[in-house]
Order: sequence, then C-alpha cells, then structure tokens
Amino acid sequence: MPEPPRIRLLIGDTVALGPGKAKLLDIIDKTGSISAAAREMGMSYRKAWGLIDNINNDFLEPIVIKTAGGKGGGGAFLSDDGIEILNKYLEMEKKATQSITSDLKWFSERLSK
Amino acid sequence: MPEPPRIRLLIGDTVALGPGKAKLLDIIDKTGSISAAAREMGMSYRKAWGLIDNINNDFLEPIVIKTAGGKGGGGAFLSDDGIEILNKYLEMEKKATQSITSDLKWFSERLSK
Repeated sequence: MPEPPRIRLLIGDTVALGPGKAKLLDIIDKTGSISAAAREMGMSYRKAWGLIDNINNDFLEPIVIKTAGGKGGGGAFLSDDGIEILNKYLEMEKKATQSITSDLKWFSERLSK
Repeated sequence: MPEPPRIRLLIGDTVALGPGKAKLLDIIDKTGSISAAAREMGMSYRKAWGLIDNINNDFLEPIVIKTAGGKGGGGAFLSDDGIEILNKYLEMEKKATQSITSDLKWFSERLSK
C-alpha cells in the first residue's frame, strides 16, 4: 500500500502562512539569505521579497528582518517572533496530520499513485 | 479579538484535493454543471475541466462523470465515490481544525488583521 499522502496547512483565507511561505522562512533561517532562499525555491528574488513583505504585513510583529545591503545585497534573518511563529506552524501541521491519520490512510487507498 | 483564521488542507504533495478542488466538486454536485461551477469560481471552463481531469486521474475511481453534451454542453455529476471522497475531505478539514483550535487562537492574536 502506498504511503498516506502528506497534508499541508493553509492558515487564513488569504493564507497568512502555508507550506510555501513556511519553507521560505525556514531556508532564510538556515542560510541568512533571501537570494539563497529564492534560488532554492526556484523563484525570483522579487517574488521571494514580495512573499516576505506579505508575511511581515500579515503579522503584528516583523517576522523577517533585512540587514543592511552590501555587495551581496545584504542578509536577512528571522526575528524571535518569526522563529516562534514558524515553529508553531510546523507543530500545527504535525498535530493536524496526527488528528486525521486514519482518514489519510483511507485516502491513500483511493489514490491512483 | 479577531476570529481565529480558518485552515485549509492540501492533500498530497501534488495536491490531490485542496480547498479549490473541493469547492469545484461541491458546486458541480449542487448545480450539475461544469460551466456553472467555472463561472462561480471565476475561472474558464477549460481551467475547470483541467482540474477535474486531474482529480479523475488522481483517484482510482472516476470522481466527476460528464454526461453527453447537448446544446448547453452537457452536464456533470459526482459519482458515489466522488461524493464520499468530497465528504471525507470536508470532515478531515473540520477534524484538523478542531485539533489545533488553541493554536489558531494563538495565531489570531499575532495576525495584524
């Protein structure tokens, strides 16, 4: 039998946070670089920055802090609030998955791949 | 305090079923028409049919059955499997939301709107 499918959470109707944004934040946290994150996700710097801008606007506290630009365009890091919110999101995804484990098994039996 | 945000589920990495597809199936079930569903969702017939084609391919059993075309382009309805799968999806979304109610409250306190 195939592995049960993964679920991914979208939070809010306009998607304050979902799997794409969470992954972007995670890579910025690991690399300290928006360019690196954009590259790893196969998107333009402009697109990545637009998503970060949305995230920063959607929350009361800044999530991604951009540092002064230099030759390399400057760096970026997650604020303490940003780290807390990202971790909470990942925890919610895990909890939600656990709450529907048997349903996901049911689903996997009906999927063609 | 604002309402806690809604979550929406994406099932599978290539999204066998998510909120958009679920809504499309729901409208087809209610209206018996792909054109009507496309219109209500603000997408082209071509786009709606593409999504339905993906759904039918992603599951072992057909989900949407298209009836013979007439002047109006024919109709469509959900198979018994389709109805069961849509209901299961909606139930999973509900269960997953309930499993993280307190986290969603935590999130809503940090959202700017």
